[in-house]
Amino acid sequence: MDDKKSFHMTSEEFRRYGKELIDWIADYHEMIETFPVLSQASPGQVRSGLPDEPPRQGEAFSAMLKDVEDVILPGITHWQSPDFFAFFPANTSGPSILGELLSAGLGVQGMLWATSPACTELETHVLDWVAGMLGLPARFTSSGSGGGVIQDSASSALLCALLAARERATDFVSNEQGCDGRLTAYGSTQTHSSLEKAMRIAGLGRENLRQIAVDENFAMSAQALDAAIRRDRAAGKVPSFVCATVGTTSSTGFDPLPQIADICRDHGLWLHVDGAMAGSAAICPEFRGLQEGVERADSYCFNPHKWLFTNFDCDCFYVADRQALVRTLTVLPEYLRNQASESGAVFDYRDWQIPLGRRFRALKLWFVVRHYGVEGLQYHIREHVRLAQQFASWVRDHPDFELTVDPPLNLVCFRHRAGDDFNQRLLERLNAGGKIYLTHTRLAERFTLRLCVGQTHTEERHVRRAWKLICETAHLLEKG
Amino acid sequence: MDDKKSFHMTSEEFRRYGKELIDWIADYHEMIETFPVLSQASPGQVRSGLPDEPPRQGEAFSAMLKDVEDVILPGITHWQSPDFFAFFPANTSGPSILGELLSAGLGVQGMLWATSPACTELETHVLDWVAGMLGLPARFTSSGSGGGVIQDSASSALLCALLAARERATDFVSNEQGCDGRLTAYGSTQTHSSLEKAMRIAGLGRENLRQIAVDENFAMSAQALDAAIRRDRAAGKVPSFVCATVGTTSSTGFDPLPQIADICRDHGLWLHVDGAMAGSAAICPEFRGLQEGVERADSYCFNPHKWLFTNFDCDCFYVADRQALVRTLTVLPEYLRNQASESGAVFDYRDWQIPLGRRFRALKLWFVVRHYGVEGLQYHIREHVRLAQQFASWVRDHPDFELTVDPPLNLVCFRHRAGDDFNQRLLERLNAGGKIYLTHTRLAERFTLRLCVGQTHTEERHVRRAWKLICETAHLLEKG
Repeated sequence: MDDKKSFHMTSEEFRRYGKELIDWIADYHEMIETFPVLSQASPGQVRSGLPDEPPRQGEAFSAMLKDVEDVILPGITHWQSPDFFAFFPANTSGPSILGELLSAGLGVQGMLWATSPACTELETHVLDWVAGMLGLPARFTSSGSGGGVIQDSASSALLCALLAARERATDFVSNEQGCDGRLTAYGSTQTHSSLEKAMRIAGLGRENLRQIAVDENFAMSAQALDAAIRRDRAAGKVPSFVCATVGTTSSTGFDPLPQIADICRDHGLWLHVDGAMAGSAAICPEFRGLQEGVERADSYCFNPHKWLFTNFDCDCFYVADRQALVRTLTVLPEYLRNQASESGAVFDYRDWQIPLGRRFRALKLWFVVRHYGVEGLQYHIREHVRLAQQFASWVRDHPDFELTVDPPLNLVCFRHRAGDDFNQRLLERLNAGGKIYLTHTRLAERFTLRLCVGQTHTEERHVRRAWKLICETAHLLEKG
Repeated sequence: MDDKKSFHMTSEEFRRYGKELIDWIADYHEMIETFPVLSQASPGQVRSGLPDEPPRQGEAFSAMLKDVEDVILPGITHWQSPDFFAFFPANTSGPSILGELLSAGLGVQGMLWATSPACTELETHVLDWVAGMLGLPARFTSSGSGGGVIQDSASSALLCALLAARERATDFVSNEQGCDGRLTAYGSTQTHSSLEKAMRIAGLGRENLRQIAVDENFAMSAQALDAAIRRDRAAGKVPSFVCATVGTTSSTGFDPLPQIADICRDHGLWLHVDGAMAGSAAICPEFRGLQEGVERADSYCFNPHKWLFTNFDCDCFYVADRQALVRTLTVLPEYLRNQASESGAVFDYRDWQIPLGRRFRALKLWFVVRHYGVEGLQYHIREHVRLAQQFASWVRDHPDFELTVDPPLNLVCFRHRAGDDFNQRLLERLNAGGKIYLTHTRLAERFTLRLCVGQTHTEERHVRRAWKLICETAHLLEKG
């Protein structure tokens, strides 16, 4: 530097610490099974290991890495452990981590095409690839009327879809004058909570959300949906949006898309399909039938950051009519004007999302698809499904346990026959033991354990060990 | 693996490729001044270098890295170049890149405290540190009634603030019944476009946004604000929200917070303060006076991903009353219930933001603060301001150029005296040359060049060279 003074990390230091950290991460993944899966930290424990004040002078990287081990690791719930069976997975992989590293290293901000054409074009291109991999029709791609964009989460994708639906239903008057409380939207009792959150954020109100009843497989009743829409229309409401789910959070239930699409067509509603977790399965042709009808949706999303080896955040959001979305979300101040945008020849992804700025997230998805190849990804998805189905067969064959519902894919919902309290105690005991991590839900008002097979390195031995542990722990609890 | 088949990157491969990539990134930063700052790619150029179909079989990491160089790099606008003076910066640093890498390597999803206590507690702790560094009062920290959280962007922070304000103004009825078009909000003509976007997203409507006039320094007129609120109340509207800016995007104008805070108190409005870029300056006591009055706000945000060496995305969002925010955004489905949340002893940051899932972003900010220390950060902020002020003095002393407004910090707004067309051509010529990248705005209806000094490695020689190039290019244009 001109004045020879700088506090920046030098290039040599970056190389040295960077390589140390790469090794640290590799070591961490090699050791990951030795940690309790669910963090055993108590509230405040992590903070108690941190100084009250930030340092006045800079510290050595080694001091930071030591604190990561001593203070941070005990407060980590190890999502990447092969013994993590909780929630839905948030799996990742070597190529994804390296893609994220490259994105951070390049440090571009892709709000406009012009602020890094590669950031926009790679994203468009990879999302077109992925659309093909899932068997989505051309209308969801950039060569058709629509296109794909990476969102941080399915919640944000759903919010964007709801906003575009709101504007389509009001001929873009809501954007100008605000909402008037007349629009209604529809999900099922099993739809993800982000729909209720989006209704509130969008100013439509929770009371204008209809939670349609489900059948014995926890799939939305198309008949009940149709009736609810007719009832609302008769009452002067303006039905405008349906969120159908392929793979609900509680039990991977699949809403009947063809019937729902018919209803949306007949009544002029926007159909959004949320395939956050199960969408990844559609890269295998044999599972694609589960989301038959998705080709008729107005929008669709799924999360490679759940079950496609790409680290959070990476939600692929597709719309059939990109103009509806862009017109809903665009604002053009002078300081963002540029020739490329005004030519109309490019996408400016800031107009496809809530925030303005955006990272170069396509890199990690591109790396993942290229590292594995389509066949590699298919192999691992199939393997996870096989392991979950094997687990389900063990449950089926055990006298004390039962399946709450037949598992369509990689999530098994099951319970001990001894009732809700017993199952709750069983869950707590299992998670406190640190060897596996499961979560629960309620299905038909019954406390149900969920075991989801989807972490990158989960193999047969992990699933087998989990089942053995569940049986042993239940046995111990039975004896009191 | 049990079946000996896997397509995953092995630990050894990860170590090898990871270290190669670390070197690649270090090399990139060493070479960065050799690239055109603004990408010279034409629309479609990047995509034309990519195959139409994804690979069936996996590819070597070396092939991917080669494509990064051949296909991606020509489509990169080099935000990290020391010759990048456009927009606001989005700077980063070695420790930040490594923090992002560690976050990706750990791969935790911190939606709930329980899903990784360290992810939540480190974030709370570091945001308390940063509040102290900025001189924010205790009410914005976790030990008071409020607290801080990392958002992806100032746009999202503003949306969250607006939603909380909407609910406070309607006693949480909007969340239930939807909006009714009566609420009004206030910014200035210089407020960031994300306020208009948030008004639309939140269902409040663009027409209910009042863009208050500014004075000669592009600061909001408190008198005009007060008059607008009174006018709206008289007309039956419900004034509910003011977004004041410390460091506007066009010109780093500073709205008069003390007077605006008085008005908000008198009329019961929520005051949000957007310090997206300029907020970082407040770590230097001598610049803190610029945002005097921020201590009376209901919410405040600034972006370490702009001017505090932390890569996008990292916006620090503070609220004085965390309950108002949490009550606005919380939804609790069965599958997210857990003992820690129900104890009330922990923060669940999913309730502080739009999406559900979240990355471990506090790591990078923690690494940055510890690597530099408070004094190191102060040094570089001061140096950027010094360089911008030096540039401004050159403009002031040149017969053909003028400052559009006196620069308070690190952004210089200036123009050639030859008029709008000339300045527009000057900008185009400069950016097409690839040696520097500037953007523009309009101030008092005049086309104005903006030069913002904020990239990590921008030194005196870069600013000096930029000025020389601007003068030479203007001279050539005059003759041409």
